[in-house]
Amino acid sequence: MAHEQAIAAIRETLGDRITTSKSDLDLHGANETHFAPMPPDAVAYPESTAEVAAIVRACAAHGCPVVAWGTGTSLEGHALARHGGVTIDFQRMKRLLRVSPEDMDCTVEPGLTREELNTELRATGLFFPVDPGANASLGGMAATRASGTTAVRYGTMRDNVLALEVVLADGRVIHTGSRARKSSAGYDLTRLFIGSEGTLGIITGLTLRLQGQPEAVSAGICAFDDVGAAVSTVIATIQMGIPMARIELVDAATAAAFNAYADAEMPEKPHLLVEFHGSEAGVAEQAERFGEIVAEMGGSPFEWSQQTEERNRLWKMRHNAYYACLASRPGATALVTDVCVPISRLAEAVEETAADIAASPIPGPILGHVGDGNFHAALLIEPGNAEELAIAQALSHRMVERALKLGGTATGEHGVGMGKTAYMEAEHGAGWEVMSAIKQALDPENLLNPGKLLRGN
Amino acid sequence: MAHEQAIAAIRETLGDRITTSKSDLDLHGANETHFAPMPPDAVAYPESTAEVAAIVRACAAHGCPVVAWGTGTSLEGHALARHGGVTIDFQRMKRLLRVSPEDMDCTVEPGLTREELNTELRATGLFFPVDPGANASLGGMAATRASGTTAVRYGTMRDNVLALEVVLADGRVIHTGSRARKSSAGYDLTRLFIGSEGTLGIITGLTLRLQGQPEAVSAGICAFDDVGAAVSTVIATIQMGIPMARIELVDAATAAAFNAYADAEMPEKPHLLVEFHGSEAGVAEQAERFGEIVAEMGGSPFEWSQQTEERNRLWKMRHNAYYACLASRPGATALVTDVCVPISRLAEAVEETAADIAASPIPGPILGHVGDGNFHAALLIEPGNAEELAIAQALSHRMVERALKLGGTATGEHGVGMGKTAYMEAEHGAGWEVMSAIKQALDPENLLNPGKLLRGN
Repeated sequence: MAHEQAIAAIRETLGDRITTSKSDLDLHGANETHFAPMPPDAVAYPESTAEVAAIVRACAAHGCPVVAWGTGTSLEGHALARHGGVTIDFQRMKRLLRVSPEDMDCTVEPGLTREELNTELRATGLFFPVDPGANASLGGMAATRASGTTAVRYGTMRDNVLALEVVLADGRVIHTGSRARKSSAGYDLTRLFIGSEGTLGIITGLTLRLQGQPEAVSAGICAFDDVGAAVSTVIATIQMGIPMARIELVDAATAAAFNAYADAEMPEKPHLLVEFHGSEAGVAEQAERFGEIVAEMGGSPFEWSQQTEERNRLWKMRHNAYYACLASRPGATALVTDVCVPISRLAEAVEETAADIAASPIPGPILGHVGDGNFHAALLIEPGNAEELAIAQALSHRMVERALKLGGTATGEHGVGMGKTAYMEAEHGAGWEVMSAIKQALDPENLLNPGKLLRGN
Repeated sequence: MAHEQAIAAIRETLGDRITTSKSDLDLHGANETHFAPMPPDAVAYPESTAEVAAIVRACAAHGCPVVAWGTGTSLEGHALARHGGVTIDFQRMKRLLRVSPEDMDCTVEPGLTREELNTELRATGLFFPVDPGANASLGGMAATRASGTTAVRYGTMRDNVLALEVVLADGRVIHTGSRARKSSAGYDLTRLFIGSEGTLGIITGLTLRLQGQPEAVSAGICAFDDVGAAVSTVIATIQMGIPMARIELVDAATAAAFNAYADAEMPEKPHLLVEFHGSEAGVAEQAERFGEIVAEMGGSPFEWSQQTEERNRLWKMRHNAYYACLASRPGATALVTDVCVPISRLAEAVEETAADIAASPIPGPILGHVGDGNFHAALLIEPGNAEELAIAQALSHRMVERALKLGGTATGEHGVGMGKTAYMEAEHGAGWEVMSAIKQALDPENLLNPGKLLRGN
C-alpha cells in the first residue's frame, strides 16, 4: 500500500517511465547467479538527477525501498528487490558529460557502461582502465568497488573515481570530492560511497580518472607444473618492480575448459597470462625480464608478442573464461567465489581450495587476479539441485574461512550484497557495527537497498 | 574539574606517563605555524593500544577531550588542544611490528616516523614512498591524508595504507581493512579514518604498502621562461605515459631563495625538478624523452643524472625549500597555503596567485607538486604583526576561492584542522553536513579532537 502510494507519486513526475509490467519486474528481479528471483513493485527510468531525487523523496515520504540497477551483472544479489519497492534503472542516464584530455578525466552518468565509455573515448587517446569482465555500468562498478584484470596496474574503482554526485536517502543531492587529483579536505565521502552498494545513497554522476592508451603493449602466456611456482614468479616480478598491466592465473581445469571452448591447445597445467603497457622499448624489456624470471622458476618458455591480434586472442579467451567454465559442464550454473589473500599466502589458499574441490563431487575451475591475491572458483552446479548448491556453498564457506585465517577478505571484488553478509562479523568484528552506525546516520529508515551488506538489514 | 577526574583516572593506569608539567603542556600546545598556543590539561604517553583505549574510556567517562599527537608538524593546528583535555603523545609507540618482503607490506605503531621506518627497511630492499617533507609520524600522516613530492607516482596516504587499528570514542578497538591488496567487503572504513584528523577515532596501528627500492633513479632540473610552459611540459609528459616519481615546480622567487640559501646558481625563473624510478635503461629513456618535451616547450636543456650525489643535492635543496624561503626574509614566520586544482587550470592558478602576491607588501615564494596540481605559497610575515597576518590570510583566502572556482580543493595535503573549516561549506555543500552526521554517529559527545574539521565543532 505504502509502495503503491510511492509509485503513484513518482508517476506524477515520470509518467510512463515508471512501470509495473510483469516483464519489467521479472527482469529486474532476476540475477546472473543462484539467488531466487526478487522482483520490485515498480521499475523507474529517470533521465536526470532531479528525477532520481524526486523518486527518492517520494519513496522516503511513503516508506518505500529504493534499489539502484545498472546492468544487473552483480554476482551477489546486490540489485534484487529483497523487500520490494522501486528499482531505479539507469539505462536512460548514460551520457558522457565531459572529457578533459589535459586533465585525463571525464564525467559520466551512472548508466554508461565501461565499454561504451571506452568506445566514446577512442579518438581521445585515453581509456578507462577498470575491467571487471562484464560490461557493467560505471555507477554499479563504483557502488560495488569493482576491479578485475587491470587492478594490479591501475587500481580498483576506489582509485579511479575522483568525485561523485549522490542522492541521499532524504533526496538531497551532494557532490563528493572534486576534479583535483588529491585533497585533504575532510572525510573521504567519495571512498565511503564507493563500495556502499546503494545502501547510503544513489550515485547519479561520476568523475573518473582516465589513462593514456599505452604506446605499446606486450602480452604472453606460460605454463607451470604447480601453482606455487606460478605465484613465486608473480612475487618475484612485483619485487623487481616490473610493472604488469595484467597478470592472471588459470588452473589446469580452466586450461582444459579453454581447450574445449576455444581450441586453445594449452597443456593442462596452471598458466599465467601477462600483459605489459609502456613504450616500445619498455614493454619489450619488461617481457624479456619476466621471461627470465619464469625460466628461473621452472616455467615453460614465456611466449609473448606485441601483435594486437595475438593479444586480443589471449584476452578474449580470458574474458570468456566464465563461459568456458560453464560450458565444461553443459547446462550448469555457477556459484562464483571471490576471496583475496596476501600474496605470500596465495599458493596455499589456491592449492587447499583445489584439493577441497577435487574431494567434492562438483567441478570448480580456479582463476584469479594473481597480482592482487584475488581468485575465483566457478563452482559448477546443476540448476535447481539443492544438494549440489549446498555442497558449493560449503566449499565457498571453507574458502572464506581459509581466506580470513590467512589475513584476507571474503570478497576481493564482487561485494557483499546478500551473499556475503554472513562473513562480515568475522571479517570486521566491531567494525561491522560502525558500518551500521553510519548507515543509521545516513539512512535511518533503511530505505536504500535494504537487506544488503549490513546486519539484520 | 571533569578533565581533572579523567587525568586522575588515567594516572591509575599510566602512572607518571601522564604529566601536567608546564613544559610538556607548552610543547604540546605549540605549532609550526601562526596559530596561538593552545595547551592541553595533560599529556599521556601510552605504550600499547590497550593503554590508549583506557585513556579514551577514562576521557569518555568524564567528558574530557582527547587529541592525538605525532610529531606536531601539522600546518593547520590539528594537534592543538582547542578545548583542553588530554593529548596522547605516541612517542612510546613507534615499533615496526612486522615486515613481509613477499607481500611488500608492514605493520607499524603510529608514532614511528617515515624516516625511521625507511631506515629500518633499508636492508629489505623496500621503502615507504609517501614523503610530505617533514619527518612526520605515520599515524599523523594517515590522520591528515598526507602526501608530498612522490604522490604523482605512488599516491597519497589514502593509497598506501592497507589496514588500520583504531580506538573509537567509546574505547572499543576496531581493525579496518586487511592485508589483502583489495576488498569489496563493505564500507571503506580505512579510507574514512584516513584524513579524519583524529575526530572519528585514534589510530593505534597501521598496515602499510611498501615499494621495491628502484633499481635505478634518474633526476634533473630545467628552467622555463614562464609557469605556463612548465605546466604544459608536465601535462604532455603525463599524457605520454612517462612515469614520473616526482615532478616539482618552484617559481622564480623560490629559485632566488635557493641561490641565497644553498648557493644553487639557478636562473631566477620557474623550474621543474624531476625524478624517474625504474630499470637502468628505463630511467635513461624516460629522462631523454622528458628532455625532448622540455625542448619542445622552450625550456632550458634538461640536465639529468643517475648519480646518487647529484640527486641527493637536488632533493635536499627541495626539502629545505621551506627553510630557504623563511631565510629569504630573516626572522619571518610563514603562512603556508595548500590549494590543489585540475592540472589544466594550474598555470592560471599559479600565475594569478603570483600576481596577487606581487601586488601585496609581503613576499610569497611558490612551489608545488605540479603533477598533482597542488601548490603552496609560503607567505612570509613578521611574527606578531597582525596587519601582515591579515594580508596573508586575505591572500590565502583568495587562493582558496580561486581554487574552488577552478574545480579544485582548499587543501591538497595539509588538511582542514582549524585553518580551513571556513571553506568546507563552500567546498562540500551538504556533504559537510554528511560529515557532521558521521561524526555524530561515531563520537556523539564530540570528545575526539573537538574544534577541528567540522562545523561549530
